[in-house]
Amino acid sequence: MPFYLRPRLFLWIGGVVVTSIAVYIFCQPSGIVLRQNIWADLTEAEAIEVLKYVHSASPELNLTAAINASLWDNFVHGIEVVHPNKEDALNFMAGISEHPPPRYARIAIHHGTSQEVYWDEYLLGPLPVSNETKIKPVEYHHRADLEHARNLVPDAASFKEWPYSIAQEVSDITQDLLQATINADGESNPDGLELTFRDPWVKDGHILRWCSFQRAGTRFGAGTLLPQGLYVKLDTTGRDPAKWKVLNWFYNGMLYNSTDEFRDAWRSPGFRKAPINRDGDWTRIEEPTSDVSSRDHPAPLMVHPGGARYQLYREAQYVSWMGFTFYWSFAQSTGVTLFDVRFRGERILYELGLQEAMSLYAGNDPIQGALAYLDSFFGMGRAMFELVPGYDCPIYADFMDTFIYDAERTQQRKRTICLFEYTADYPLQRHSTTFYVTISRNHYLVLRTTAVVGNYDYTVDYIFYLDGTIEFKVRASGYIQGAYFMPGESQEFGFRVHDQFATSMHDHIINFKVDLDIINSRNTLVKINIEPKTKSYSWSEGEPLSTMSLTRESISNETGFNWPANSETMYIVVNNETQNQWGENRGYRIMPGSGIGTPGHLVAKSPQSLGKSASWAFNDLWVTKQKDDEARSSSPRNAFNKDKPVVDFAQYVDGDNITQEDL
Amino acid sequence: MPFYLRPRLFLWIGGVVVTSIAVYIFCQPSGIVLRQNIWADLTEAEAIEVLKYVHSASPELNLTAAINASLWDNFVHGIEVVHPNKEDALNFMAGISEHPPPRYARIAIHHGTSQEVYWDEYLLGPLPVSNETKIKPVEYHHRADLEHARNLVPDAASFKEWPYSIAQEVSDITQDLLQATINADGESNPDGLELTFRDPWVKDGHILRWCSFQRAGTRFGAGTLLPQGLYVKLDTTGRDPAKWKVLNWFYNGMLYNSTDEFRDAWRSPGFRKAPINRDGDWTRIEEPTSDVSSRDHPAPLMVHPGGARYQLYREAQYVSWMGFTFYWSFAQSTGVTLFDVRFRGERILYELGLQEAMSLYAGNDPIQGALAYLDSFFGMGRAMFELVPGYDCPIYADFMDTFIYDAERTQQRKRTICLFEYTADYPLQRHSTTFYVTISRNHYLVLRTTAVVGNYDYTVDYIFYLDGTIEFKVRASGYIQGAYFMPGESQEFGFRVHDQFATSMHDHIINFKVDLDIINSRNTLVKINIEPKTKSYSWSEGEPLSTMSLTRESISNETGFNWPANSETMYIVVNNETQNQWGENRGYRIMPGSGIGTPGHLVAKSPQSLGKSASWAFNDLWVTKQKDDEARSSSPRNAFNKDKPVVDFAQYVDGDNITQEDL
Repeated sequence: MPFYLRPRLFLWIGGVVVTSIAVYIFCQPSGIVLRQNIWADLTEAEAIEVLKYVHSASPELNLTAAINASLWDNFVHGIEVVHPNKEDALNFMAGISEHPPPRYARIAIHHGTSQEVYWDEYLLGPLPVSNETKIKPVEYHHRADLEHARNLVPDAASFKEWPYSIAQEVSDITQDLLQATINADGESNPDGLELTFRDPWVKDGHILRWCSFQRAGTRFGAGTLLPQGLYVKLDTTGRDPAKWKVLNWFYNGMLYNSTDEFRDAWRSPGFRKAPINRDGDWTRIEEPTSDVSSRDHPAPLMVHPGGARYQLYREAQYVSWMGFTFYWSFAQSTGVTLFDVRFRGERILYELGLQEAMSLYAGNDPIQGALAYLDSFFGMGRAMFELVPGYDCPIYADFMDTFIYDAERTQQRKRTICLFEYTADYPLQRHSTTFYVTISRNHYLVLRTTAVVGNYDYTVDYIFYLDGTIEFKVRASGYIQGAYFMPGESQEFGFRVHDQFATSMHDHIINFKVDLDIINSRNTLVKINIEPKTKSYSWSEGEPLSTMSLTRESISNETGFNWPANSETMYIVVNNETQNQWGENRGYRIMPGSGIGTPGHLVAKSPQSLGKSASWAFNDLWVTKQKDDEARSSSPRNAFNKDKPVVDFAQYVDGDNITQEDL
Repeated sequence: MPFYLRPRLFLWIGGVVVTSIAVYIFCQPSGIVLRQNIWADLTEAEAIEVLKYVHSASPELNLTAAINASLWDNFVHGIEVVHPNKEDALNFMAGISEHPPPRYARIAIHHGTSQEVYWDEYLLGPLPVSNETKIKPVEYHHRADLEHARNLVPDAASFKEWPYSIAQEVSDITQDLLQATINADGESNPDGLELTFRDPWVKDGHILRWCSFQRAGTRFGAGTLLPQGLYVKLDTTGRDPAKWKVLNWFYNGMLYNSTDEFRDAWRSPGFRKAPINRDGDWTRIEEPTSDVSSRDHPAPLMVHPGGARYQLYREAQYVSWMGFTFYWSFAQSTGVTLFDVRFRGERILYELGLQEAMSLYAGNDPIQGALAYLDSFFGMGRAMFELVPGYDCPIYADFMDTFIYDAERTQQRKRTICLFEYTADYPLQRHSTTFYVTISRNHYLVLRTTAVVGNYDYTVDYIFYLDGTIEFKVRASGYIQGAYFMPGESQEFGFRVHDQFATSMHDHIINFKVDLDIINSRNTLVKINIEPKTKSYSWSEGEPLSTMSLTRESISNETGFNWPANSETMYIVVNNETQNQWGENRGYRIMPGSGIGTPGHLVAKSPQSLGKSASWAFNDLWVTKQKDDEARSSSPRNAFNKDKPVVDFAQYVDGDNITQEDL
């Protein structure tokens, strides 16, 4: 059952007495039937084999080896594994099929030989390469109207060089207004200027971009705190920088239609300068005071001298802990996904994984006012860097590496995943009687990664609790991306937090896919509403009493929901065809997690800067029928194709009946 | 500023850059000016002095020493401290007044000499007793229409004995239907029957009660899991059991109008028996399996070998940790309250404390269908029992005792409060740059108590975080109170979880008072709304863009609020008269805490079983003007006076202007 959800959700066994939650069972690994991890990313050997095959077997792609390729060539942009079809996977996991499902790779090709640059994706397999191995274009039935995933920044080098040359042309102006010039030609002055960009977009056949001047702020990685209030709009249509144009300048509330117009205004008497947003100690992370050394005052510390109580199978990417078992897989675009999550041997989840991290800003300037990020473009897996033992994860945690296949190179990223057990500061259960008290310590298991996407460090946790709860949680830290402060304007979108710097309100909406399988893949989503009610009872002697009751409602068609006001609805995925001994359906509840309040959906209504690229952000929770060709709710290639996204999630929600189906 | 709030709220500094949250400062106690704790409960010496005074100086009360008193006498029911008026307290804390505010005691007197039994409260002071000491009735301006707080169960002994004698009269029936008889005359058969009661209520001058038969279940404290589906309604008006009456019996969906009618029906052919809800292993807390000893597999454990990093002044009930300082006080009805909470020397909160814990049940039988608890009646402080080191709190925590003054006896309760620092499993802050990464460990301070009220163990935490956040959190554990299972009926109100036992849906609504003082006591509540918006900008060349913005709205009159849908409103308490260097008001945000989702308010609309006793439960958040005679939102004596409560919170919300007032 794929559910597409906001972060910090919480899965919870429905209808369980508190007492049955007090679990102190140490599940022995004897029940584990460890099978090959059929969802694991390509091995380095497989990746090499795929590359060899595509170069030799596909002359029509006209590929150049990535190491020799220019952006005017076709070359392999990236490769990743294709997860098997669900039915094949289940048959293998159940032992019905002896052989694992065939493995396939998905290859993204940069098509650079023509004026329009684009990516295409191809399926290649089965692996290992044999006579049966073939390559063919990926077919999405939803993208019949879409020929390619266009690349609006095909040439990162000239797409940086040219705007920097524009900035150089106005060095006299920036020196006067900002007391700094652009860090062109590889300069790295921390107080020099850099340009940052909103994603380019297409209008009437033109590729348009707004750029912002900010101070480099490289001492403390503080660039996003240092916008300078100067913006330039460019037309970078086509591949010849000689034909690119400056369209507008924007400074201190005034829009100028050319560089000349801007320069003339600047030279005019009465030109109004705005104050400069300067770097300084305020962008430094506060350090400990030296009054008391931390050595004299060590903080409380979690220790685990007995060693791990989970079984970790590094090769298989498989974990067993206190009755839970699961496989994990890694992908560059989305990071870690869990597969075949079981509790006490029974599958609960077929798949649980991050799909996309979107953020949408609001503000009064051309950047903050229409900025939208789709972070799988940068790669929520690709952005996973080394975790720091003792800080990101306890010192006793297990750390795992990941592999990135970038064009045709392999990078090993050390310690990007950690796994550890922790003990909460409060008990799982407590029950006092006249004669005794029972208290259960509250241990839980965490699988953690951190993706560093620009100014944000996103920490993604998958957490397992002894009561059967599975939670996923995303935490964002780092430096905010804010706005150059404009009196009377910035307050509409945030708070002033420094001399010339204001916060920019923004929504982070993060999408997870949850494919629950309760008993089997035939499940139903039930809404249980808690409703106020007036009711007379025989024992109330006819007096109508004000009370409340439950109503149950099966959801029959694919749709989206929001978290209800006052928590007056519960969403439970049940299997209608099996009851426990008391006639209740088995099910899992889906609920907001233990974050701060209820995670929200997008406030802005259909913002242009998102287009059709992230329609899942308009509701908190969606339910759709499981389809192998609707495996992901987003694509890393949506960011440059917001009007015609490679994956348009709205097309998944097309009215399929979802009663006792694989949801 | 008193805010009356639902649990798990979260106070948060508004408008702060993430960087300023990374605090690793060890605040030295040098800045602490420790003054007398003017909010502390009475000492034992004060309590003795008060009792001596009231017995000698108040012959008109006609008091009997509690040890000699019968329920037909007047005697001292309880005594507690009266907190000083806020202005006096602030003057003393600021050093404006050299002497602490005079101390007063509040005495509750049981008036038992007449047919109507009631409590009255008296103020006695100043203390220590001197020529100036006087005693006078407590005056609430809101209770002009209320003469006394009536006591509907003045004689607990006969109010138990008589219904048990009724149950003995039907032993033949219970033996047949339930295979058990009542545990009368001190019997303690764990499979015998006991009676439990809904709170009595008054109708047309009669005191009415519904009682439920349940199995004792004393092996595992499981009585609330063992309702037997047999109920009796009693009229216990007056003080003479000979005049009390059985009004109804209710069994298997049928209502009978007398014991004879019930007995006749039982003897009739075709009388339909319902199955028995038996005790058994299912009510036992699961124990660890013996396969793997916990000794071989110790869990992760928090240790603090360096010793506490806070300063704890046990006598003064004062704590200093990482820039936070606060006093605490204890009261039998409400447990622990914090006073004068400061961060870096500046007061944030004048008062923060639990007021009332209410629960309201729904079901199809006469008990579950109209059951309402107001737990300050039992005493959220009085119900605080010993915490278990290593389970309730870390083994290295500090434990403090409390004193209960019960009638005229003093009980010392050991280890009822614990204090400890803990380290979260995730960092407080993380920021990666090209050159370095900063990560701050996330330490926090917890002050914890657990109140055992019947089947529920309520754990109340006050939590302090390094970013300035203060959170309070209530966790409920224990055994549920459920319903005897009736096919086709119980499902309307819950789930079947055993052979003859179903869950009963119920709302727990817990009320806290938050008196924020930002800079000083003149504060304003601001609603900041996040609103979708369409806006054209000069740089968008006239194109209207879909975006969002902030609107600020000061709340001018006392009122109640709910948490907004999609978190689209922020509630911030600011001081309008002081700005920081960037012109922003200083303020604290009030938000739902890190519990599960957003805490809710009451679903049922004005249920009869609550009357006017807990109108704060109808909204999530209330703001009122601070008044010394509106110190608490509830009273332990509301439970028997729901129609005419001693404290009717609705009367506090009477339209006072609240702009830049002491809220």
